[in-house]
Amino acid sequence: MAKVADKYLKVDPWAVIEEGFDPLRNRTSESIFSVGNEYMGVRGYAEEGYSGDSLPGSYFNGLHEQLEIGNHYKGMIRSLRYMVNAVDWLHTRLTVEGEQLDLAHSRISDYSRRLDFRTGTYSRQFIWLLGSGKKLKLTFTRLVSMTDSHLGLQQVVFEPLNFSGAVEICTGLDFGSIHEERGQSMWRSLRCGVQDGITAIMASTLNTGNKLFSGFVLQSSQELQPAKVERDRFIGQAFRLQLTQGTKDSYTKLAVHCRDQEAYLHEDALWTKGLELAAAASKRNDAEVFADQSAYWSGIWETSDIRIEGDPENQQGIRFCIFQLYQTYHGDHPGYNIGAKGLTGEAYRGLAFWDTESYCLPFYMFNNPKAAKSLLEFRYKTLPEAMDRAKEVDCEGACYPIATIDGTESCDLWQHSNLQLHVGTAVSYGIWHYVKNTGDRDFLYSKGAEMLIQISRFYATRGQWGQRSGEYGYFGVMGPDEFQLMVNNNCYINLMAKKMFEFTLETLAGMEIQVPDAYAELIRKTGLRTEELTDWSSKAEHMRIPLDPDSGVYEEHDGYFDLPHIDIHSIPVTDFPLYSNWSYDRLYRYDMIKQPDVLMFMFLYNGEFSREAKRANYEFYEPRCIHESSLSPSIHSILACEIGKEEEAYQFFEFATRLDLDNYNRNTREGLHTTSIAAVWMNIVYGFGGMRSDGERLSFRPTLPQRWTSYSFQVMYEGVLLGITVDSEHVRFKALRGGTASILVYGQQIMVDAAGTVLPLGEGMLA
Amino acid sequence: MAKVADKYLKVDPWAVIEEGFDPLRNRTSESIFSVGNEYMGVRGYAEEGYSGDSLPGSYFNGLHEQLEIGNHYKGMIRSLRYMVNAVDWLHTRLTVEGEQLDLAHSRISDYSRRLDFRTGTYSRQFIWLLGSGKKLKLTFTRLVSMTDSHLGLQQVVFEPLNFSGAVEICTGLDFGSIHEERGQSMWRSLRCGVQDGITAIMASTLNTGNKLFSGFVLQSSQELQPAKVERDRFIGQAFRLQLTQGTKDSYTKLAVHCRDQEAYLHEDALWTKGLELAAAASKRNDAEVFADQSAYWSGIWETSDIRIEGDPENQQGIRFCIFQLYQTYHGDHPGYNIGAKGLTGEAYRGLAFWDTESYCLPFYMFNNPKAAKSLLEFRYKTLPEAMDRAKEVDCEGACYPIATIDGTESCDLWQHSNLQLHVGTAVSYGIWHYVKNTGDRDFLYSKGAEMLIQISRFYATRGQWGQRSGEYGYFGVMGPDEFQLMVNNNCYINLMAKKMFEFTLETLAGMEIQVPDAYAELIRKTGLRTEELTDWSSKAEHMRIPLDPDSGVYEEHDGYFDLPHIDIHSIPVTDFPLYSNWSYDRLYRYDMIKQPDVLMFMFLYNGEFSREAKRANYEFYEPRCIHESSLSPSIHSILACEIGKEEEAYQFFEFATRLDLDNYNRNTREGLHTTSIAAVWMNIVYGFGGMRSDGERLSFRPTLPQRWTSYSFQVMYEGVLLGITVDSEHVRFKALRGGTASILVYGQQIMVDAAGTVLPLGEGMLA
Repeated sequence: MAKVADKYLKVDPWAVIEEGFDPLRNRTSESIFSVGNEYMGVRGYAEEGYSGDSLPGSYFNGLHEQLEIGNHYKGMIRSLRYMVNAVDWLHTRLTVEGEQLDLAHSRISDYSRRLDFRTGTYSRQFIWLLGSGKKLKLTFTRLVSMTDSHLGLQQVVFEPLNFSGAVEICTGLDFGSIHEERGQSMWRSLRCGVQDGITAIMASTLNTGNKLFSGFVLQSSQELQPAKVERDRFIGQAFRLQLTQGTKDSYTKLAVHCRDQEAYLHEDALWTKGLELAAAASKRNDAEVFADQSAYWSGIWETSDIRIEGDPENQQGIRFCIFQLYQTYHGDHPGYNIGAKGLTGEAYRGLAFWDTESYCLPFYMFNNPKAAKSLLEFRYKTLPEAMDRAKEVDCEGACYPIATIDGTESCDLWQHSNLQLHVGTAVSYGIWHYVKNTGDRDFLYSKGAEMLIQISRFYATRGQWGQRSGEYGYFGVMGPDEFQLMVNNNCYINLMAKKMFEFTLETLAGMEIQVPDAYAELIRKTGLRTEELTDWSSKAEHMRIPLDPDSGVYEEHDGYFDLPHIDIHSIPVTDFPLYSNWSYDRLYRYDMIKQPDVLMFMFLYNGEFSREAKRANYEFYEPRCIHESSLSPSIHSILACEIGKEEEAYQFFEFATRLDLDNYNRNTREGLHTTSIAAVWMNIVYGFGGMRSDGERLSFRPTLPQRWTSYSFQVMYEGVLLGITVDSEHVRFKALRGGTASILVYGQQIMVDAAGTVLPLGEGMLA
Repeated sequence: MAKVADKYLKVDPWAVIEEGFDPLRNRTSESIFSVGNEYMGVRGYAEEGYSGDSLPGSYFNGLHEQLEIGNHYKGMIRSLRYMVNAVDWLHTRLTVEGEQLDLAHSRISDYSRRLDFRTGTYSRQFIWLLGSGKKLKLTFTRLVSMTDSHLGLQQVVFEPLNFSGAVEICTGLDFGSIHEERGQSMWRSLRCGVQDGITAIMASTLNTGNKLFSGFVLQSSQELQPAKVERDRFIGQAFRLQLTQGTKDSYTKLAVHCRDQEAYLHEDALWTKGLELAAAASKRNDAEVFADQSAYWSGIWETSDIRIEGDPENQQGIRFCIFQLYQTYHGDHPGYNIGAKGLTGEAYRGLAFWDTESYCLPFYMFNNPKAAKSLLEFRYKTLPEAMDRAKEVDCEGACYPIATIDGTESCDLWQHSNLQLHVGTAVSYGIWHYVKNTGDRDFLYSKGAEMLIQISRFYATRGQWGQRSGEYGYFGVMGPDEFQLMVNNNCYINLMAKKMFEFTLETLAGMEIQVPDAYAELIRKTGLRTEELTDWSSKAEHMRIPLDPDSGVYEEHDGYFDLPHIDIHSIPVTDFPLYSNWSYDRLYRYDMIKQPDVLMFMFLYNGEFSREAKRANYEFYEPRCIHESSLSPSIHSILACEIGKEEEAYQFFEFATRLDLDNYNRNTREGLHTTSIAAVWMNIVYGFGGMRSDGERLSFRPTLPQRWTSYSFQVMYEGVLLGITVDSEHVRFKALRGGTASILVYGQQIMVDAAGTVLPLGEGMLA
């Protein structure tokens, strides 16, 4: 874990602030200063046009293009889908006396930008030093509305410091933005025009034919006399603003977007719908929109803030994480998922992985249960695609894709998409975990059970019986540890499948008694046969779980213990990242692991393993793990807390909240590590807070990192918002709203109410 | 092995004959009627142009193009090379009264074609029924000269049956032929023109810049008045031949080819050299060229014929095999190798595999030792490329490529090119086998030893020590059985590496004593260190060879015995080929194997295993083998002979000689199974003949298949041409030339001389 911070941004508890413009860091900052509202997201690029290194990315959740890939083998995908770079609705060009603004060439001073967690806005200001000696102060502010997801707002304020004169402005909607991986715009224009003061364009993706409407209205204190500008894939308005020395002038662009998928709208209907939305937006002003946005975020911080005293960097870091998580996803739109980079870049193609259920779901379950449910609904909505995929790989039931934007498999590495079986069990775990902590049996019985049946069918047909062992398991697989490319009986996969079968059987048994009609209907719908239940039960019972009885260490897969050993600390730092510097095949023949595999299931089913078992396995596997996945350190930190390795736990946590702010992996330029952000939340709540959500009741064993004075966080549990504060002497639990909740603290059951309960900080904790 | 013959061609002991034209079988016939002379080869396509399904392929051994492939991972290849479709030097267009001949449209009768093993020619004749009612009999004959490798000859004979009149002819050299996989011609013309009666063109491959000169002269009984025809990538001559009813008229095209690589000729020098060769060729006439060709083949059949009495189909089949093997390769050109499809099609891209040393080398060792040596010289010549490749995969020494045309790796499946380690040991085995049977220590000490050192270095750095077993072996590999994609300690790889280390050490020890100066020079050149010898010795000694001591069955790799079982006979016939009908990953999780793996090393080091061990392993592995490789049945047949499974041995052999003639695999259209052909030769000589060449002396245990009356074959051993004849009662050995030879027959040492030795057919043999 030789990670080094690139300390650059200013530390502030409620904002990210960059002072001065650094072209070499520009792309990284574009990722960090992204704004989004789940429906859409836009990188923090310079809307006035920047001819230097930049990725002007504008993304709409789930809006995808398709790429055909040559493939001759059955079961490998023939095309893949990816989130496509869409309309640049912030497009602006500014000219004063014939000189056009471009930070790559223009002289500027006093540059700063700020992403504000409380107002939900991104603003950027600087003084433009014109060739003529004139100085013009500019402030660009933008937001995408959390309360009206179609709406984006851009405000540009001009303050001439030493002159009066005019600025020429062209502002528009540009579908010509290049999708960088494909090297071209993936759009063709369908229609554009100006109607009732709304400037609008509608375009379609080249291959998938997904349509997007974009329209805007302008507002200003001055009377604008805009002239339409039209070219291929672009429509805009050109106008002039008269500026007076010492006075601020401004204009606001209210842009609305609307997609055909929302209502499967045809061209005409989409155009009409878009114009209606734009007309409604035009009735609002920027002050109202700003106020709504602040109010929304105020509500979020009330329920979801984490406060850390004595550690300003992590305080900023964790708020940035929570802010970005909410921007990416908050469950207002069923059918959306969380891409590995959220809506902040092209990397990982906007695809969602098992991260959703394994890393992100707990954040939503305990902050916004509706959003957690929505994530599971995505899997239900895409059950048909998962069933198609199972057929393609010669199995029954549902095979959930490794990487997807719309339910179809979009991972073009066959060894991942065909061998990695951990998505289906992540979904079943997610259902189990969600229902356990929310008590939402309606969801379980109406949708969850159907998914469980189809997932079980897949795992019952993909697995096989070992000839010698006589046990059931999975051959030719890759577990979460991607440094073991193709193995038999990966312990994680086997154990998760065993638990999945058991949960399915338990769920069905419960249904039969509790909701016999729904059960009968489910049997009818799925054609479930009694033999299948017997079969699953037998497979769960005889599942192979490789374990060394002497040491208590689970064997990651058959033969793992004989793999050649490498001292990972002996690998020269210059060899990292290994994927770039080692021959590809060399990665796969050591006992070195990439990320938690055995330790992952010990985290997920935490209560089923003794502290001694966790210690033995942690002490065996951690020294073999190089944490090449950004999801790895948090899980290790949580387990290290549990087994009393305080210093190690903090070291793993150290850079977690600031992975992107300090660009530890040197790849934040590609987009934020959005799903890792969710793991950071877990690192604090499950790690230091010692929360466990896999038992009968929610439980806590809080500790306090040595460097912190105190910290507090909230969780929503059974409708109660619990506030937890930990300082060097006490742990305080309080029901902030929603009545009382029964939880376990240090193994003792307590009832938490509005008055709160104070306990001494547990023994054996971080001192 | 559900293989079904497509019986179509006429059975003849010395020729392949097709009667009637079948457009659906045309591509298959094009492959079968290929002619070649090692330097070049040409498919049996219709030179007059055929607008139906055809692959007009013309190939030059080793002449390649290059394709860049996007690849981001270290150790995976970034470009690959492939044998490129080159000049169509047979290009002819025939017109009578404005009607152009094209078998796809023209009416014809009495069509037949013949590939003659004794004259080394391919001829095709039919009567063209013109729209006007005129009938013109045409005979096209072609050869590529075995004695003058630059030379190709085409003769066209016209016989008007019911008219007199003129035929318009355009004959030329066409570099515009499409390389089918790339969908375009891969050539650009550099120069063309007519000089001293020679019509010539020189072209260059688009990416690699390989240059090829092609020129021709015309000869005819009539005075021709040709007119030059020139267009992009084409030059030719148009002329008219006056035909008289009842008379045969003809013309002959003598075409010569010359490549820049031969002498690294620059453009001008190549053009001059080509014209000189063409001028020399123009002094010869077709009768002389035909006579030379017949004489050459007469010599071949004298030393290399196999005669089978009582089985006309196999008689034809084995001669076709021997004929095609010689056409593909006979060792006149050092630096050439044997592509999987020879010079008969684009499939496998003209690349050579381990087949060369494992399957082809014995044929040449015992028929044409000079050619065998040349094959090994190819590996010596490409040692630098193998050393570069070893570096690319983070190892030392030499990593010989899985698939190559020029020594560089051209296999673009990483799991094959990075995991399949069986080429290096095939090369060392080839050296060992060749030296053992020819006594050529000069080669061993001058070139072999250097290769062995570099091969040993590769295997000493690619392997690792098992943590639990404490044994040395190879992790992350694929053995010859490609149905086990990535395993640890493949028994074949480990055993072959162990033998390779031992042979290297033995060779170096021998050199030190026998040729101390050469040894010292070798040490200097390779920088060999004493520790390396110790290291190799230790690795050989502690090599892991997984074996079940109870059953005596070697475990194909660690964990193989626990793999789920599948009864291969339970797989529906419609599932084959499995690569097309099974999900790719499903192939890899059974105990089903594709081709011999354990049995392969029991064949190669035959003398080291008892008959009981072979029986136990054969009986275990054969029922698990689906023989998806065309190289598989012969090895099984040979071992079945040895362990007395006569019927099974014959069943495996049954379609071997006629794999292409009867198109068993339904893919002969892509080209011949050239390297399988060599295995067929082994099937007879090692199988029924019971020859073994891995012991101290050459030995035989002949048997007679029940269906045969008798058979005979020859082998060249220590300079003596041994003739062996087997009938139902006796086995006869005779030294046909070269003195006397000491061999073992049924375990008894005998001295064979010109008078010969007759022994009773061994006991327990096929009755």
